[in-house]
Amino acid sequence: MTSSLLQPTDGGERYELFSPTAMPKAGAFLWNQRMMIQITCRGYATSQFMQPEPAKYAYAPTLEAKTFMQPEQNYYAHHPGRFVYIKDEETGSLFSAPYEPVRAPVDRFVFSVGKADIAWTVEKLGIRVEMTMMLPTQDVAELWTIKVTNLSDRARKISVYPYFPFGYMSWMNQEAEWDEKVGGIVGSSKTPYQKAEDYPKTKTLKDKTYFLCETRPKSWEARQKRFEGEGGIHNPSCIQFEELSNSDARYETPTAIVQYRENLDAGDERVYRFMFGPALNQTEILALRKVYLSEDGFATASRDYKTYIAQGSGCLKIETPDKDLDNFVNNWLARQIFYHGDVNRLTTDPQTRNYLQDNMGMSFIKPKVARQAIITAVTQQEENGSMPDGILLAEGAVLKYINQVPHTDHCVWLPVALEIYLAETGDYAILDEEVTSMYGDTYTVFERFSRAMEWLLSARDDRGLSFIAQGDWCDPMNMVGPRGIGVSGWLTVATAYALKLWATICEKHGNPNVAAHFLAGVDEVNAAANAHLWDGDWFARGITDDNVTFGIKKDVEGRIWLNPQAWSILGGAASQDQIAKILPQVDEQLSTPYGTVMFAPPYSGMREDVGRVTQKYPGQGENGSVYNHAGIFYVWSLYTIGERDRAFRILRQMIPGPSEDDYLQRGQLPVYIPNYYRGGWKMYPRTAGRSSQLFNTGTVSWAYRCFIEGLCGLRGDKDGLIINPQMPSDWPRMNVTRLFRGAQFLVEVVRGDGEEVKIVVDGKVLVGNIVRDVVEGRRYVVRVEVPR
Amino acid sequence: MTSSLLQPTDGGERYELFSPTAMPKAGAFLWNQRMMIQITCRGYATSQFMQPEPAKYAYAPTLEAKTFMQPEQNYYAHHPGRFVYIKDEETGSLFSAPYEPVRAPVDRFVFSVGKADIAWTVEKLGIRVEMTMMLPTQDVAELWTIKVTNLSDRARKISVYPYFPFGYMSWMNQEAEWDEKVGGIVGSSKTPYQKAEDYPKTKTLKDKTYFLCETRPKSWEARQKRFEGEGGIHNPSCIQFEELSNSDARYETPTAIVQYRENLDAGDERVYRFMFGPALNQTEILALRKVYLSEDGFATASRDYKTYIAQGSGCLKIETPDKDLDNFVNNWLARQIFYHGDVNRLTTDPQTRNYLQDNMGMSFIKPKVARQAIITAVTQQEENGSMPDGILLAEGAVLKYINQVPHTDHCVWLPVALEIYLAETGDYAILDEEVTSMYGDTYTVFERFSRAMEWLLSARDDRGLSFIAQGDWCDPMNMVGPRGIGVSGWLTVATAYALKLWATICEKHGNPNVAAHFLAGVDEVNAAANAHLWDGDWFARGITDDNVTFGIKKDVEGRIWLNPQAWSILGGAASQDQIAKILPQVDEQLSTPYGTVMFAPPYSGMREDVGRVTQKYPGQGENGSVYNHAGIFYVWSLYTIGERDRAFRILRQMIPGPSEDDYLQRGQLPVYIPNYYRGGWKMYPRTAGRSSQLFNTGTVSWAYRCFIEGLCGLRGDKDGLIINPQMPSDWPRMNVTRLFRGAQFLVEVVRGDGEEVKIVVDGKVLVGNIVRDVVEGRRYVVRVEVPR
Repeated sequence: MTSSLLQPTDGGERYELFSPTAMPKAGAFLWNQRMMIQITCRGYATSQFMQPEPAKYAYAPTLEAKTFMQPEQNYYAHHPGRFVYIKDEETGSLFSAPYEPVRAPVDRFVFSVGKADIAWTVEKLGIRVEMTMMLPTQDVAELWTIKVTNLSDRARKISVYPYFPFGYMSWMNQEAEWDEKVGGIVGSSKTPYQKAEDYPKTKTLKDKTYFLCETRPKSWEARQKRFEGEGGIHNPSCIQFEELSNSDARYETPTAIVQYRENLDAGDERVYRFMFGPALNQTEILALRKVYLSEDGFATASRDYKTYIAQGSGCLKIETPDKDLDNFVNNWLARQIFYHGDVNRLTTDPQTRNYLQDNMGMSFIKPKVARQAIITAVTQQEENGSMPDGILLAEGAVLKYINQVPHTDHCVWLPVALEIYLAETGDYAILDEEVTSMYGDTYTVFERFSRAMEWLLSARDDRGLSFIAQGDWCDPMNMVGPRGIGVSGWLTVATAYALKLWATICEKHGNPNVAAHFLAGVDEVNAAANAHLWDGDWFARGITDDNVTFGIKKDVEGRIWLNPQAWSILGGAASQDQIAKILPQVDEQLSTPYGTVMFAPPYSGMREDVGRVTQKYPGQGENGSVYNHAGIFYVWSLYTIGERDRAFRILRQMIPGPSEDDYLQRGQLPVYIPNYYRGGWKMYPRTAGRSSQLFNTGTVSWAYRCFIEGLCGLRGDKDGLIINPQMPSDWPRMNVTRLFRGAQFLVEVVRGDGEEVKIVVDGKVLVGNIVRDVVEGRRYVVRVEVPR
Repeated sequence: MTSSLLQPTDGGERYELFSPTAMPKAGAFLWNQRMMIQITCRGYATSQFMQPEPAKYAYAPTLEAKTFMQPEQNYYAHHPGRFVYIKDEETGSLFSAPYEPVRAPVDRFVFSVGKADIAWTVEKLGIRVEMTMMLPTQDVAELWTIKVTNLSDRARKISVYPYFPFGYMSWMNQEAEWDEKVGGIVGSSKTPYQKAEDYPKTKTLKDKTYFLCETRPKSWEARQKRFEGEGGIHNPSCIQFEELSNSDARYETPTAIVQYRENLDAGDERVYRFMFGPALNQTEILALRKVYLSEDGFATASRDYKTYIAQGSGCLKIETPDKDLDNFVNNWLARQIFYHGDVNRLTTDPQTRNYLQDNMGMSFIKPKVARQAIITAVTQQEENGSMPDGILLAEGAVLKYINQVPHTDHCVWLPVALEIYLAETGDYAILDEEVTSMYGDTYTVFERFSRAMEWLLSARDDRGLSFIAQGDWCDPMNMVGPRGIGVSGWLTVATAYALKLWATICEKHGNPNVAAHFLAGVDEVNAAANAHLWDGDWFARGITDDNVTFGIKKDVEGRIWLNPQAWSILGGAASQDQIAKILPQVDEQLSTPYGTVMFAPPYSGMREDVGRVTQKYPGQGENGSVYNHAGIFYVWSLYTIGERDRAFRILRQMIPGPSEDDYLQRGQLPVYIPNYYRGGWKMYPRTAGRSSQLFNTGTVSWAYRCFIEGLCGLRGDKDGLIINPQMPSDWPRMNVTRLFRGAQFLVEVVRGDGEEVKIVVDGKVLVGNIVRDVVEGRRYVVRVEVPR
């Protein structure tokens, strides 16, 4: 990647963005098991912590709705953020770092995103400001270092004003003031409640927000309006004076801003440390200060946090002709999977399909976590064998938002997740574990999976097609089957895939009769799909309560959907002939430079028999957009049929970059895969490709699988490691390091002269393509020659 | 009132504020039966309309929580508002009217609040901008006129940019663009929903926001970020260019800004008209445009709206030594009552006590409305005689927010409201009307009221004290009696007042036996209050579930509460001796320069056996503040015992002004009584007296009563009009015009030489103090001589 805008450093372990304006929403995120913060290059931040439900400690300036995490966050002048103003005391000139709220053009700007910290360097007026944020591994606290350096060749008088607004904390009570005892500004509030019975739930909430200063400031301000005065947030009146006014806030919007007045000789620097976060009371704040707020405390926290993040390093390193891809896969993709698997998107009721897939990815990172999640999920299996819409993870948690809408696909994800776990670990013993559910019934995992598969078979209509109720995986389609009649084309072919996977597992686990039973189910389901859903060149998306088949040629909008095609390939509904028809249709109708859209053409208005898809395009995520979670299954299906070039093209499109034009259009750093890119390439080219900026997505586990098992072709099996690289035809070679069951495989893939693949393991030609009896701790050197 | 800051004009029919910064939150409101808009002197606005639940058409920049109307609205840079930027095309200089978002100091500023319109005049750079907003009587639309005049003595080139931001309309979909057919910018969105069954409710919502231009602009902008660019809202980048960029918004925050480029000769002016509001579709927008968007359309709408507002002119005009008071009472107070009575605070489930009092005020304005409301209320009486927490006014309405918390006081307000209606109209026939409730039972109004009074008598404990459950009138006390044991001191003495009023009505209606029954109840209740709640110098506020009496001398916080004192006077629990002890205690412990606080000392922390009062002070409205609704009952109780000077002092304190210091401290224009002023006069003098800026309050009906029946002493009775003025002792005279049952009373009150009051009606000395057999259409000239 060569770009004046964006560069990897430290071997791709960091990314540096050199402009605050080119990609204004570009940001990054840090998390620990109790909190998450997403922050943009310009300093706007969205943070939440769990107690156990998500809560805030830095609020919007108005009463915000509680909602699921929104894509494409909208930033505005008073959006929560973390800033520092710098005033030249001799000239009165002002700028702010990182960039907001003053927005003064700066001489130098670097937004540097690391795996374990986020940092900025901003230079202006001969002053350098370096800001670094990191988190501890356990506590809910942001650890900030702000360093100011005099770059000019003369002494300077400046004031430094860190500004961490609290926002509108609560309508029930809010106030803030300097607290001498803790050495910082403390905002107090009361989480609103109205019913007496709700009070106990609010009583122990961390309703205080602290901003602690290691060094005592010269002056402070705790009242937002007083701070801004008539100057406004871009030029606060209070900063015009020699000192801040030391004003408290009483049922007024609280804030935290402090002043340090400094005389800096040429080259002099000052380092300040701050902590920002929520707390129950003064005692908690004092305890946090004691642990962290010092040079040593920060250093220890930093080491610990790096160790934490290193757990998510993954099992794959690649060296390919595509350096940007290497950087992403080697440094960032597994980190994103680790985030999902370790904290479950910081929800207490993850959707069952998300929970299973997020933890599925942990098979490659921390297999024990994946194992436990499979057990946890089936502990909540309904008595009739079906799976609930969400998995409850905390005492008192309830199903919220979309989890209150009945979906019928959750059972599908059980074998889909399990298969990967088994391939990676060979741990078939999990199947024999007995699990007593929350309803008191006891079955082995094997029995529970079989019961779930029976439920899938049962939840079909007379034609053999799967009911959709108010939705399947594809959330927006809530009106296809609310009367209990409508069916899902995708779920039908996905049921075949789930049954097929499960039958294979049954076979390998020594249950051929059960396998045969479910394979018969596969045939039955696929026959039904072909009888009712094949539209000549692709599979339909579904049939409504009123018996209207949709996602077919005669539809003007929503004519072809990606999911039924991908999963009909995976589940076997599509024959070779059918696949040969499907692939060019997908290419032609769904491809864009930014990925494969979920369906096309987009809906321009409401279609009442289908549902939320008709939210007008480009809408929120699923609708007519490049919905990566859908796309990645198409990629996986392509790898399963050896379509290596098609597969790689789409897989590569999911990762922002490498061209500068591409970055600018997507507006995102290549440090995670977002849940969607905007579609509408033809109708709205201005916004097509734009990133959702939302890093919560089931895509990543599958993307990792596509790299490991697809591109690199290093897939686990009960007996060992299968070697079947699918290198794009324009690559001459690639090197791969793969950790597998405690062994290390160093794999070199080159173009050979032969017409067949030749595999050499530790100098010996391998017969077949599976390395059996993998020995823990051993290093295997593998050379694969693939045809030119 | 002589002030360089604020002046009445047009005989007090308007108020003019001359600074945008002195009282930054000062604003005013307009409404019609389907919408309400509150707008500040600086241009920030909060508007809602009913469909039938409250909805918005101009949104915050972030996803807002749905909530009850909040006091002390917090304004911030991107708060919704209505603005116009003016750019000098020759110099590039920029300012905005009214004041936000540029905040450029202006040469002249007038914020002019009328009863039927709100207007601004802003002068800067030799340009005058006049903005006027009005509403139609029926449709949901703001009608804006913007006039620009060249005040300089030379030709000028300027651009005029009206800017009406739409905000974050919806996460489900939002977009905006210029619509040539309607001649304006139209934003489209989809009200979010997730469950299929919720869709039909959202389907016909007015999800479009229109900004229509009578005159086609030169250029436009529909995308907020594009408009602002890096300049920010105070200095938008787009305005630096010759024209706006004509950019649409696609799932980006939409906005409406248009440009007019003008060459103005010296003295030239341009007038523009705009409409802003919500609509279902283009057809609706076109229809609205056709009706209103023209000089004639605006003129007709203005006339109609003035006629509508004139319905709320009330029945009292006074001419006293206090001209500010005259202005308020003659022009504004009845308007505020009319708002309450005509639209019920734009809710579909008003709290029962609010509904009754809001309509009670209509007895003085449109008695038929009051009558109908009494009937409507008892139609929703529970089968056991109690009243529900809220009255449902729309098909499909449900009890929300505080109405889901059980309160025990609603029955009290029935006779309280009825008494005023009967006094004003003499319409005792209402009592004999048969009402079939929503539960199917049928009783006369008389029987329903008796049943409600029986319920009050029944809802008492063994001591004879009234249960409080999770609250009585005083919302915050939700933990006194959640276990069903705790009792309310206020409700106990208020029950006596309600029973006493009802007994009197029974007596007058010819039911002496029923009257005697309830009078016995009064004695019983008052005896219980005295036995258990009299604390030596005042009455206690209540006794908790755990038998802790509070609101007593030994309490350090919440030691004395105003409501039990006022209502013990009204209901008769307090003897003359006790009243003589109570009044000085209230003076000493509860008085502040801005009114009488609801209790003192304020709570500094949570008191778990009492409840929400412990939200820390100064909190939201009720707690430790000058809660006018509580204060006004104290005033009324003082008038009933002839405490004319004390009564008038506190009544006068409710109206902002007259001194400039007082205005500045309260920060509100004298065009309505707010629900509270901040308390904390001793602890937090900086914020004491600050207005809530919330004009929804049951205070106003009672304030009007206090002026009419207290100060002026012109109270209706079954037989006629009682004359008993209670002029403050330092006034020499006052003149009053009172409309009563279709007759007009011209009353002159003067200091006479005698020691007794002397009343002369139409030249004849009146025996007694009641004018009987009032003749509709007749004018009565009354002269009252009161002792010096």
